[in-house]
Amino acid sequence: MLRKSMILLLALTASIFTYAQNDYLEAEAEDNEKIYQGGDTHMVKTYLHKFKSKKPKNVILLIGDGMSLPQLQSGLIANKGQLFIQNFKYTGLMSTNSADNYITDSAAGGTAISTGVKTYNGAIGVDVNDNPVKTILEDAEDKGLATGLVSTSAITHATPASFIAHQTSRNMYEEIAADFLKTDIDVFIGGGYSHFTEREDGRNLANELEQKGYVVEQDLNKIKKVKKGKLAGFTAPGHNGRVAERGDMLPVSTKTAITVLSKNKKGFFLMVEGSQIDWGGHAGSTIYVVEDMLDFDQAIGEALEFASKDKETLVIVTADHETGGMSILEGNPETGLVKGEFTTGGHTGLMVPVFAYGPGAEEFIGFIDNTDINKKIKELIISN
Amino acid sequence: MLRKSMILLLALTASIFTYAQNDYLEAEAEDNEKIYQGGDTHMVKTYLHKFKSKKPKNVILLIGDGMSLPQLQSGLIANKGQLFIQNFKYTGLMSTNSADNYITDSAAGGTAISTGVKTYNGAIGVDVNDNPVKTILEDAEDKGLATGLVSTSAITHATPASFIAHQTSRNMYEEIAADFLKTDIDVFIGGGYSHFTEREDGRNLANELEQKGYVVEQDLNKIKKVKKGKLAGFTAPGHNGRVAERGDMLPVSTKTAITVLSKNKKGFFLMVEGSQIDWGGHAGSTIYVVEDMLDFDQAIGEALEFASKDKETLVIVTADHETGGMSILEGNPETGLVKGEFTTGGHTGLMVPVFAYGPGAEEFIGFIDNTDINKKIKELIISN
Repeated sequence: MLRKSMILLLALTASIFTYAQNDYLEAEAEDNEKIYQGGDTHMVKTYLHKFKSKKPKNVILLIGDGMSLPQLQSGLIANKGQLFIQNFKYTGLMSTNSADNYITDSAAGGTAISTGVKTYNGAIGVDVNDNPVKTILEDAEDKGLATGLVSTSAITHATPASFIAHQTSRNMYEEIAADFLKTDIDVFIGGGYSHFTEREDGRNLANELEQKGYVVEQDLNKIKKVKKGKLAGFTAPGHNGRVAERGDMLPVSTKTAITVLSKNKKGFFLMVEGSQIDWGGHAGSTIYVVEDMLDFDQAIGEALEFASKDKETLVIVTADHETGGMSILEGNPETGLVKGEFTTGGHTGLMVPVFAYGPGAEEFIGFIDNTDINKKIKELIISN
Repeated sequence: MLRKSMILLLALTASIFTYAQNDYLEAEAEDNEKIYQGGDTHMVKTYLHKFKSKKPKNVILLIGDGMSLPQLQSGLIANKGQLFIQNFKYTGLMSTNSADNYITDSAAGGTAISTGVKTYNGAIGVDVNDNPVKTILEDAEDKGLATGLVSTSAITHATPASFIAHQTSRNMYEEIAADFLKTDIDVFIGGGYSHFTEREDGRNLANELEQKGYVVEQDLNKIKKVKKGKLAGFTAPGHNGRVAERGDMLPVSTKTAITVLSKNKKGFFLMVEGSQIDWGGHAGSTIYVVEDMLDFDQAIGEALEFASKDKETLVIVTADHETGGMSILEGNPETGLVKGEFTTGGHTGLMVPVFAYGPGAEEFIGFIDNTDINKKIKELIISN
C-alpha cells in the first residue's frame, strides 16, 4: 500500500514537473513577445483641416484589422508619442457585433462595414439568408467612381473580400477570387496570387485579368510604377509576410492605388486594410502588433498626404473588431518600450474607434454601429 | 542520499500541491465574478442637442474612476444596449500618463484634470516640486461660481481631493479634510465623515463646518431635501459600500448637488466621481464593474436631465485611467450577460474616452491630454 502510494506520488510529481516546465517555457516565449523594446520610428506630419467642399469627391477607408485603442496606443508609444492618426479631429466609437455573435469575425465585420447589413460570422457580402448584398465598392462603381482594394493579407482574405465578393464562407478563396472578375474594380494590390492561378477549376484568372485590360504584376517595384489604367498587383502567393519580409508594401501600395484611382475625374473609393494587426493579437505578441500598427499608420499617412492636398477626399480609419483583449501594462514614449498583455487568442467584443478627416468628417462622431459606415459613405458620395 | 532526495521530493510535492490548490480556489472565486449574468436595468432617455449660448454657464464634470471603453461597454451590454452616455455626440480620446509614470494613479490623474499640470503619482493638487497648483474648482470659486464635489468613495479620496486639497500624499486624509475648510465649496457629498471628526489633531471639522454655515447631514434622506445654501453630506464614516449597500446614493447626491448649486445666478462647477468602477477593476470583478457603471450612468442621466432643460450647462464625462486591463470576451445585450477578463489587479496605461454635451462640447474631440480638460473648461467658464 505504501509502496503503491509512493509510485503514484512519484508519477504525479513527474507529471506536475513536466506540466510546470512546459508552462514555464511557454510563458517565457510569450513574455518575450509581450514587450516591444523600442525600435525604428517614422516621421509624422501635421495636416491642416481646410477643404474645398462640404461633401467629398473621394473616400479612402482604412481598416486596421483587430485594432481598438490598445493596439493603436501600443503603436503610439512605440513611435515615441506620435502617429499620423493623431491628425484626426473627429472621433467616434463603433460597435462591432455580428448577426449571430457578440464577437464578430472579420468576414461579418467587413460585410457590415461594406454593405450596411449585419450577417453571420464567416459570411462574405451576403446577408443572413445568404442573399448577396451590394457593397459600397459596387455602389461606387455603378456611380462611375474608380475603385480599389489594398491589403497586407491575401486580397481574397475576409476583409477585402467583403467589399467585392458574395460567398457564404470566407474560406471559399477560389470563388472569392473569381468574384473579382465579375466587377470593374480598377486597382487591387495584396497577396493571394495562387487563388487566381492555382485553381481547382483550372482557370487562370491572372490571364483573364490581363485579357480584361489589367496590368498584372507580382513585383512591388513594378507595381509602384503604374500610374494609370487597371492594375492587379500580387505581392505574395498567399498572405504577405510580416513587415521584416514585406517591407513598406502597404504604404507603397496605398500611394500607388491613390495615384491610379485619382486619375478618374468623377472620384474614387479605396479600401486599405492593415490585416496583420489582428494576427499580432492572435499571437499575443506586442511586437507583432506594434510592427503592424506602425506600418498601418504609414499607410494612413499616405492617405492624409493626398487628402490634405486634394481637399476633396474623406479619409476614414476604423477597425472590424479588437483582437487579443490587449492591455498596456507599461509604456515609455521616450524609448518606445511597450509592455502589452492579452486575455485571449481570439477576438473580443470591445468597441473600436472611428476617425475621420476631410469633407463630411463631422458625420463620424459619437456612438455608431459598424453598419453605419456604409450608410454614411453612401449618403456622402452615392446619394447625391 | 536516496533517502534525502526522497524527502526533498516529498516536500516539493507537498508545496506544489498546496500552491496548485490555492491557485485553483482563487481562480474559481474570480471566475464567479467575471461573468455578470444580467440583472436590473435602468430606463434611458434621449436628449435634444439645443442650447442657448455658445459658451456654458455651468460645467458638470463626471469622472468614472478606472473607466475606459471596456468598463463602459460592460455597462452598455448589462443595461441591454442602452446607456445615458450614448446621448453624447462629441467624443475624444485622452492620454492619462502622470509626470513620473506611464501608468497614473488617481491622485496624479485627478490633479492633471483639475489643475492642468502633470505631477507624480500620489500627489494631490501639487506639482512635481510640491508647490500647490490652483484647481478649476478654486478658479470657479474666485470667479463667483458655486462649486461642488460628489463621490461614492470618501470625499477625501484621491479624485475629489485633487479638486480641492493640496497635499504631497493622497494618504494624508486628515490634512485633505482640513483643506475643505480653507475653501468656500458650496456642496460636497460622499463618505469620509471620520476624517473630519475622528482626528489626531482633536479638531471636529463637522462642527467647524456648521459654524461656517454648512448644513452637515449623515442621512441621505435628509441630504436630498436640502435645496439651497451650503451642504456637507457624509453618507459613510469611510468609503460608501457597494451599490447593494449604498443604493442610489450617487445619482441622488448628483441631483441634490445640482439643485443647490444651480441657485447661484453666476453659474456653477460640479465634479461627480463614480469611484468604485476602479475597485471593480482592481478586484477583477465584472459584476462589481457593471454595478458601478450602471450607477455612474444614472448620475450622468441626472446631469443630462438638468443640462437638457437648462440649456447653458456643459456636461463632460471622462476617466482618470483604466483599471484591470479589462476585455469583453462575451456579451448578450438581450439578457445583459457580460463575460469580462482582466490582465492585472492594477491600473493600465490605456487611453480613456471623453464625452461632452452642451455649449462648448465640440471642443472635446480628437486626441487630448488629461491636462487639457482644465484648460478647456477654463477657457469656457473662467477666462471670459
